[in-house]
Formats: sequence, structure tokens, C-alpha cells
Amino acid sequence: MLNYIITVVGGGVCSPEACETARRLGWLLARQGHILLSGGRGGVMEAACRGAHEGGGVAVGILPGEREQANSFVDISIVTGMGQARNVIIVKSADAVIALPGEMGTLSEMALALKMNRPLISLGSWDLPGAQAAKNPEEAVELLEKMNQKCDAAGEEGPLPDIRRC
Amino acid sequence: MLNYIITVVGGGVCSPEACETARRLGWLLARQGHILLSGGRGGVMEAACRGAHEGGGVAVGILPGEREQANSFVDISIVTGMGQARNVIIVKSADAVIALPGEMGTLSEMALALKMNRPLISLGSWDLPGAQAAKNPEEAVELLEKMNQKCDAAGEEGPLPDIRRC
Amino acid sequence: MLNYIITVVGGGVCSPEACETARRLGWLLARQGHILLSGGRGGVMEAACRGAHEGGGVAVGILPGEREQANSFVDISIVTGMGQARNVIIVKSADAVIALPGEMGTLSEMALALKMNRPLISLGSWDLPGAQAAKNPEEAVELLEKMNQKCDAAGEEGPLPDIRRC
Amino acid sequence: MLNYIITVVGGGVCSPEACETARRLGWLLARQGHILLSGGRGGVMEAACRGAHEGGGVAVGILPGEREQANSFVDISIVTGMGQARNVIIVKSADAVIALPGEMGTLSEMALALKMNRPLISLGSWDLPGAQAAKNPEEAVELLEKMNQKCDAAGEEGPLPDIRRC
Repeated sequence: MLNYIITVVGGGVCSPEACETARRLGWLLARQGHILLSGGRGGVMEAACRGAHEGGGVAVGILPGEREQANSFVDISIVTGMGQARNVIIVKSADAVIALPGEMGTLSEMALALKMNRPLISLGSWDLPGAQAAKNPEEAVELLEKMNQKCDAAGEEGPLPDIRRC
Repeated sequence: MLNYIITVVGGGVCSPEACETARRLGWLLARQGHILLSGGRGGVMEAACRGAHEGGGVAVGILPGEREQANSFVDISIVTGMGQARNVIIVKSADAVIALPGEMGTLSEMALALKMNRPLISLGSWDLPGAQAAKNPEEAVELLEKMNQKCDAAGEEGPLPDIRRC
Repeated sequence: MLNYIITVVGGGVCSPEACETARRLGWLLARQGHILLSGGRGGVMEAACRGAHEGGGVAVGILPGEREQANSFVDISIVTGMGQARNVIIVKSADAVIALPGEMGTLSEMALALKMNRPLISLGSWDLPGAQAAKNPEEAVELLEKMNQKCDAAGEEGPLPDIRRC
Repeated sequence: MLNYIITVVGGGVCSPEACETARRLGWLLARQGHILLSGGRGGVMEAACRGAHEGGGVAVGILPGEREQANSFVDISIVTGMGQARNVIIVKSADAVIALPGEMGTLSEMALALKMNRPLISLGSWDLPGAQAAKNPEEAVELLEKMNQKCDAAGEEGPLPDIRRC
């Protein structure tokens, strides 16, 4: 069952710890039935896609250039040819954004998420006013659950209650 | 099994015949295991998504504005907020493009497909040099099959041999 | 005095005749005080920018990739890094679009112009319903003049009466 | 004489002090012959455009939606219809970026500037590693001058030595 679209952002290169966190996060999101959206490339993105793949989920990658850039765990490649402008699409398509450690690209995506009123969870990433902090992937997914319940309580209907509007 | 990404373009409003053609095309593509990519809105797009849904497939919609624009058969909404610039993404992400009747938006997408070297099948749409004509959805899907076999013959490997490069 | 933004589209390579037409058109537009907007690259674009330069005007180039792509007559380079999606910006920013001979990229821009309700003049380019034909640059500029007068008659005010809305 | 393209970013609403700073900065940039690039809307953007106008310069506005969004001091409106994705163009087209106080949109632009290796000067805005701080518009323009001289010393030639590459 397809559920939410959860965007995971983070560095194109990741430490073993961050990679493991991303992979576990991807796995958990897949097990919850969420679609994983990311930039579709290496590092945090690849690890999260790998986790989603292992969890039996669907990983969508919004690529900056050509399809060849996709990591091997992306199920559906959206090829923009728009460089960094694709970051806007990654964030705008999300019900919620979870940020792992990264550099300036990640920071720009987190700021965009707040600008666009997407719920933002920082999992060891930049500390921004408006972002919620999670210590580990389990806590991040719990935070999503709580948003979800708040949505249910608010009486949203249909197969895709929108976290953002609750 | 996910196979190719096939983009269907056409008018935001469609005649009963064009709607029925689009729906049947969506159904056939889904039965072949292809992912249906479209602009995610009404008319030809909605009919094709409906067909894909009925065929048990996956319909991805690349939306010009907000998520609310998606027709009710879109499984995965990619929200660009980029207006007509999203047409470039629809075409660029495709292994092949199938065009149904439409106006200037459709014509611009067909021209883009040729500009970007995507195989283009015209199913009752504009007649452009470089596009292949198909009389009905079955013939369109047969044309895709032939491209596919040409790819196989060319020795492409992996789960996603790329029609475009064969 | 800056006047209208007139977009010139056409092939990235041009015949001596088309180049000469583009150059003369750029010159005429500059002499009328219009800003020349184009894709900023070679062929028709470069010839038009050259003409604008020789006419003492301002040439703005909306580039698909990096600044290095600009021809040497572009005064102001807007660097999008968005590939073909920059075509949407070229058309959307225009008060009117004049098309010279070109291939599929040009056709997609002409179709976009009609889709976006921009006045479109075909100067030896594709013949589309809704486009006005001009035989030479002088006639194209006369057509702009007439649109302009129609605007004035409609009582539009300010330094930038918008051709599109008259 | 057109010189560099300097992008000014900052909040769509500004305090009287920030507005006055932006206006003075726009004026100084215009007096130095630079082209002022901005998002073309209100607040810091409008104040900077106003200053450029008063200084006899050229203000280019890269608009997120339609032309009507431009403030009244924009000389050349580039209409993208791409929402926040236009921020990428603003930064990518710049020889250097100067940031004034702003919220998340401004932060995302500053992060993008660093990501894209554009020289970034913070004039009372977010404090990011890699940004240079300036206390007032005069100091910001002096920092640009120094980059310029470094370029000259590096032997760059032509009318548009590119700050970024020195």
C-alpha cells in the first residue's frame, strides 16, 4: 500500500554511521508503506534507497542531470536535467522531509522545506528553527506517526491524508 | 515488475474516443509492466492513468503546480510548481513518448521528445517528421515491443535496457 | 529607453540568409528600443544578438547550462542550468515571440508561445495555426507596431504596456 | 558600462534599517557599473532595485510567477513561472551574491551560493561557514573590489572577467 511520500535529504557522501542510519531509515519507511523520495544519487541518498529496496518499498529518485546518475536502488527515475533546481521538486513533493548529515546542498533543502511549510525532521543534520530533532531512525518514524495521528484526529479522509495540512 | 517508463501526452480535455483510446493504452502499458508517466491532470492524462490503475500498474504524475491538481488515478505525484517547465521533465524521464490528440501543449511536448531523441509514437496526434504513427493502442504497444527487441538484439543488459540507446 | 521584451527563437545553426535576417531583425528591434531576449547561443540567436549589439540595444540570453555558452553579443547572461526548461522562461518573459527557421527546439518554443498566449510571428519558420506570418524583418516589426497601437488604443498605461493583454 | 552581475538576496519584507541598507547597496552597485540581479519582488529586493534605479543602473528581476509580481524599479523582468526554483537561477547567474537579512528563502539561497561556489557576502544576514561578513554596503562593495583585483592580477581578460574563477 502506498502511503506518504517521505523525502530524505543528506550528503552525497556519508560516513559509515550516517550511511547505516540512512539505510535503516529507508527500511523503516518502506515497512510503513511510505514512498521514499530523494535526489537519487550517492551517499545518504543511495543508502536510504538501499534500505527501502531491502524493505520491499518503492524508491523514487529526482535526478539533477541524466538517468545514468541514479544509484542502483532507485526504482523510478525522474530525470529533470535541471541541476540544483530539482531540489525544489524533492521538497515540494514531500509530505515530510527527513534530513541526515550533509553540506550546503542539504542545508538549502532544509531551508526550502521550512519555507514551503513541509514538516522537517533533523536526524543529526543542521539545527534550524522549525525543524524537529530525532536521535535515530526509529524516533524519526515515530514523529511521522504522531503527525499522522494528528491528521487522523483532524478528520482528514481518503487514502492520502496530507500530513502538511493537519 | 517495473519495466520502462512510458510517457503519455495529450489534451487536458478529450473526446469520448480519445479518452477511450487513452484508457485502453494505459491499461495495455500496465499489463506489460510499464510505468505510466504523464502530466497527471485531466483529459487524456486522466484516462490513461485510469487505464493503468485498472490494469494494476503504477501511474506517476508530474504536476505543474500543487498536488491537488492530480487526477484521482495518480499513484505517485511529483509536485514541481514549475508550470509548463514540467513538460521537459515528463519527456526527459521517458524511455518512449506516446502522443494522443491535443493542442499546443501536446505539440510542444512532441517537439521536445524529438529534440531529446526520445522515440515518439503519434496515436492520432500531430504529424511530425520523426514520429511513428500508430492506428490504435495495440499498435502503439507493438511498436514499443519492436524497439524493445531491437534493444535486446543489441545486447543491452540489466533490468532496464534503455530503448533510447538501442 | 527600454520598451518591450521581444524574444527571437530559431535554429542553433543558420543558413547565410536566415543569419542575415536574424541580424537585421535584431538591429531593427534595438533601434525601436526593444530588449532582445533569446536563448543566448549560436545560429539565429547569435545573429540576432549581433544585430541588437550593432543597433545599440540590449541583448539578454537565457542560457541552458553555464555562462560560457553565451555568444559574444549577449549583454546580460541569465544562467539557468536547466537545459531545455529554459525555453519556457524565454517564451514566458516575452511580450511577443518572433520565430526564424529552426528545428524541433524552435517548434516547441513556438507551440509554447501559442499555449501561453504570447503573440507569435513566424518569419520563415514553422506554419502554426495562431501564428502571424511576416515576409521579412521589417514586416515583423510592423506587426509589432500594430499590436502596440492596438494596446495604446485600448488605453493601457505606464512605460510597459503589455502587448499580450491588449 | 555593464560590469558584473551581482545578486542581492534578502527578505520579502524588511525593517527600515535593512531597507535603507539594501537601497544604499543597490545605489553603490549601480554606480560601480554592476548589474543588479534579484528576485524582483518586495522588501530587500525592491529597496535594492530602487537604489540601483536611483544610481542610474540596471535592475534585472527573476520572478517566481508572473510579470505583475515585479516591483516598480525592475528594468528587465525575467518571468519564470517556476516558483522557488527561480532562486537557483538568481544564484547561478551571479558573479557574487550579497545577502541581507531574511528568513528561510534567503538561507536557502545563501546555502545554494556556497554549494555553487559563488562568492557570498553576508550583510547582516545568516552566518554560514564560507560567507564573508560585511558591516555595511560600502564594505560589501569593497570586498567585491578586492575579488575583482584578485581577478585582474590573475590575468583574466575581456570585458567580463569572472570573479568566480579567480
